[in-house]
Amino acid sequence: IAKEVAKLLEMKAQLGGEEGKHKFVLKTPKGTRDYSPKQMAIRERVFNAIITCFKRHGAEVIDTPVFELKETLTGKYGEDSKLIYDLKDQGGELLSLRYDLTVPFARYLAMNKITNIKRYHIAKVYRRDNPAMTRGRYREFYQCDFDIAGQFDPMIPDAECLKIVHEILSDLQLGDFLIKVNDRRILDGMFAVCGVPDSKFRTICSSVDKLDKIPWEEVRSEMVGEKGLSPEAADRIGEYVQLHGGLDLIERLLQDPKLSQNKLAKEGLGDMKLLFEYLTLFGIAGKVRRCRGRRGGCPRGRAGCGRYDGLVGMFDPKGRKVPCVGVSIGIERIFSILEQRVEASEEKIRTTETQVLVASAQKKLLEERLKLISELWDAGIKAEMLYKKNPKLLNQLQYCEDTGIPLVAIVGEQELKDGVVKLRVVATREEVNVRRESLVEEIRMRTSQ
Amino acid sequence: IAKEVAKLLEMKAQLGGEEGKHKFVLKTPKGTRDYSPKQMAIRERVFNAIITCFKRHGAEVIDTPVFELKETLTGKYGEDSKLIYDLKDQGGELLSLRYDLTVPFARYLAMNKITNIKRYHIAKVYRRDNPAMTRGRYREFYQCDFDIAGQFDPMIPDAECLKIVHEILSDLQLGDFLIKVNDRRILDGMFAVCGVPDSKFRTICSSVDKLDKIPWEEVRSEMVGEKGLSPEAADRIGEYVQLHGGLDLIERLLQDPKLSQNKLAKEGLGDMKLLFEYLTLFGIAGKVRRCRGRRGGCPRGRAGCGRYDGLVGMFDPKGRKVPCVGVSIGIERIFSILEQRVEASEEKIRTTETQVLVASAQKKLLEERLKLISELWDAGIKAEMLYKKNPKLLNQLQYCEDTGIPLVAIVGEQELKDGVVKLRVVATREEVNVRRESLVEEIRMRTSQ
Repeated sequence: IAKEVAKLLEMKAQLGGEEGKHKFVLKTPKGTRDYSPKQMAIRERVFNAIITCFKRHGAEVIDTPVFELKETLTGKYGEDSKLIYDLKDQGGELLSLRYDLTVPFARYLAMNKITNIKRYHIAKVYRRDNPAMTRGRYREFYQCDFDIAGQFDPMIPDAECLKIVHEILSDLQLGDFLIKVNDRRILDGMFAVCGVPDSKFRTICSSVDKLDKIPWEEVRSEMVGEKGLSPEAADRIGEYVQLHGGLDLIERLLQDPKLSQNKLAKEGLGDMKLLFEYLTLFGIAGKVRRCRGRRGGCPRGRAGCGRYDGLVGMFDPKGRKVPCVGVSIGIERIFSILEQRVEASEEKIRTTETQVLVASAQKKLLEERLKLISELWDAGIKAEMLYKKNPKLLNQLQYCEDTGIPLVAIVGEQELKDGVVKLRVVATREEVNVRRESLVEEIRMRTSQ
Repeated sequence: IAKEVAKLLEMKAQLGGEEGKHKFVLKTPKGTRDYSPKQMAIRERVFNAIITCFKRHGAEVIDTPVFELKETLTGKYGEDSKLIYDLKDQGGELLSLRYDLTVPFARYLAMNKITNIKRYHIAKVYRRDNPAMTRGRYREFYQCDFDIAGQFDPMIPDAECLKIVHEILSDLQLGDFLIKVNDRRILDGMFAVCGVPDSKFRTICSSVDKLDKIPWEEVRSEMVGEKGLSPEAADRIGEYVQLHGGLDLIERLLQDPKLSQNKLAKEGLGDMKLLFEYLTLFGIAGKVRRCRGRRGGCPRGRAGCGRYDGLVGMFDPKGRKVPCVGVSIGIERIFSILEQRVEASEEKIRTTETQVLVASAQKKLLEERLKLISELWDAGIKAEMLYKKNPKLLNQLQYCEDTGIPLVAIVGEQELKDGVVKLRVVATREEVNVRRESLVEEIRMRTSQ
């Protein structure tokens, strides 16, 4: 039972002795980066907000390996499969790095025959994409997923997912935002009643998606000119997709003589209406709009939310489905916004939590410093000292200034005789003698807010 | 600025519609595993103890990518290089999964020209080893590393690393333990004065390592018989390596007429003596022994600690060295011990932190439940509800029993009229009416310990 702990890890020992002056390309792989302590401090803030929210909604947490059997990922990502990182065949199983956390989650559910769970999972995923790192687009990036799996009454879990997105974006104070929602059945139904042939659904869909970026006239001419849609059908689509609104629009569409005859559209609009009713009860309907195309522009690195009722069934030997809905928050973009904000504000971010530096003003007090710091550590105080036999007091105080340590515990000949420690408040330069036996309590009191 | 959040992540949407009954091998890759919510709860406890300790010692935290350029790892692991996972060449850079956190740390220091840092890093590393999962030996496993880099007075950072190991092993209450330390220079010096030829140092060393498992006589006959060492040299080694002890033994060896003439041994013993003096001040010398061989048996998944003063220089274009010492804690073995202990104790582990379930006793109160839970979430209360329109009260109470939720907030017609909520304590079945405006405060009070 972990009885032995060895100094000199074999490997490290071997490395320690070798000389080497080889030339290396000193970089991280394309599309990846290190996180420095300062960046980690910002990252922790973001994770904290997200995890606190996920826990507030009663989620459990799971973890899965960074790689999966290659066949687990096969057939799940369509064209994007080419972005999957494969591992080299070194004998044994063929493996791939996970592309998202959704497919591993579905595999986990099917493998463990779980039909009912609310879980979150925060981990890195991998895509051989074209990186654009200044815009927060990486090849290794975090996803923060919250998913609800199980057979429930319609739209209740869906509404909770949107509430979660709303809570997190509000909490992180990233500025104003709008959540766009959609139901594929609505657009499919619209296409049907507008006379778009089934074979053209997907391509017309992608034209509609461009409405966020280019005006309707251009989209229309693409549909008619490039994609061979009849002008009449295009105009009918135009009438629908140029409408804006929330619950009011859904009500209007439900009254629409043509659309209300289409089964798919009717179901989609019905669920959407229910969703908006729940969002109204949650007080967030004002931040949610129905979007025109398939998607409301859900670039990676922001947040996406959706149902995937068929995925678990793809893993189950009998194809048993487990309805799922979830939200995925990408932190890289959020993180780069916050990082820029911190840079601009000149806010000083502490990268340690050290409460006190154990210092001495005179020489030959290393042993006394070691004894004192050991007492503090054993009492749970976060303490540091300089790793020098005889550090200068000025250097010790400077270290506190640089790293934001609020207190200095100074041992000296006289203090040792008197059974006290001199406690200095770095910010005010105030110094008080504290009896050794009260030191821990005094430090705790002065560093608790 | 994250203005838009979309429902129906494109990928997920496509998956949701497809049917699939393919046969998959439903497993995680060899040597890896998932963590269930219950396992995650135990893992979090272990991480908590470790991170708390690292922070108590004033460490910053960094993160690096899961893969490195293949050439970054080349030449760092000797024979173990064959255990490195390579990524498939899909065009672009050749990449490998990290084998430990030490080499990425050294790369990070050299790349950023950092000569002075105390940092921790907790992350998964990858080895194509023969897994033995019941004994906590995995191909994907966590390392929890704490390292001190910089030019300091001898043995002060080394002593702190051992103090950290002592604190963590004590804190986790894994039972009694012994920390074994060594300095390669001592064994090298012993070999020299015993008349072991330089060419046989390494192989004789590996014989000495076996002393933990087999008696001296067998080790001796291996040295003489298989490895061709002279019987006299073997006997001289035997005299040294069969000695046991801490500081007292080091003192004796420093007085040894032959050994004290050897420069390497003298330096090694001098540093070891200093180390033990510091460990005595830290109050942990009693748990530390000098081990006989190169290593004290530092199997993966426990803890290892050592210097690697040459590694950073291998990355620096001018070969500039940064002395480093660090400790690496493997949690898999610790985790499996704790997991077994939890199983045996039948301790009920909660996997969520939910404070209250929002419930109703009558039908048609979904909207009131949604309104109330939204109020609670917005006030920071961890709350859940069942995703059913009209759940039975018994099912709602059962859910609390199953998941350990301590309180139920029940809305009903009468309570709504009276402006109150019925708060039920699950453990005692006590019920009190609480005014709606005091509910948040009441829940906070009853769930704070």
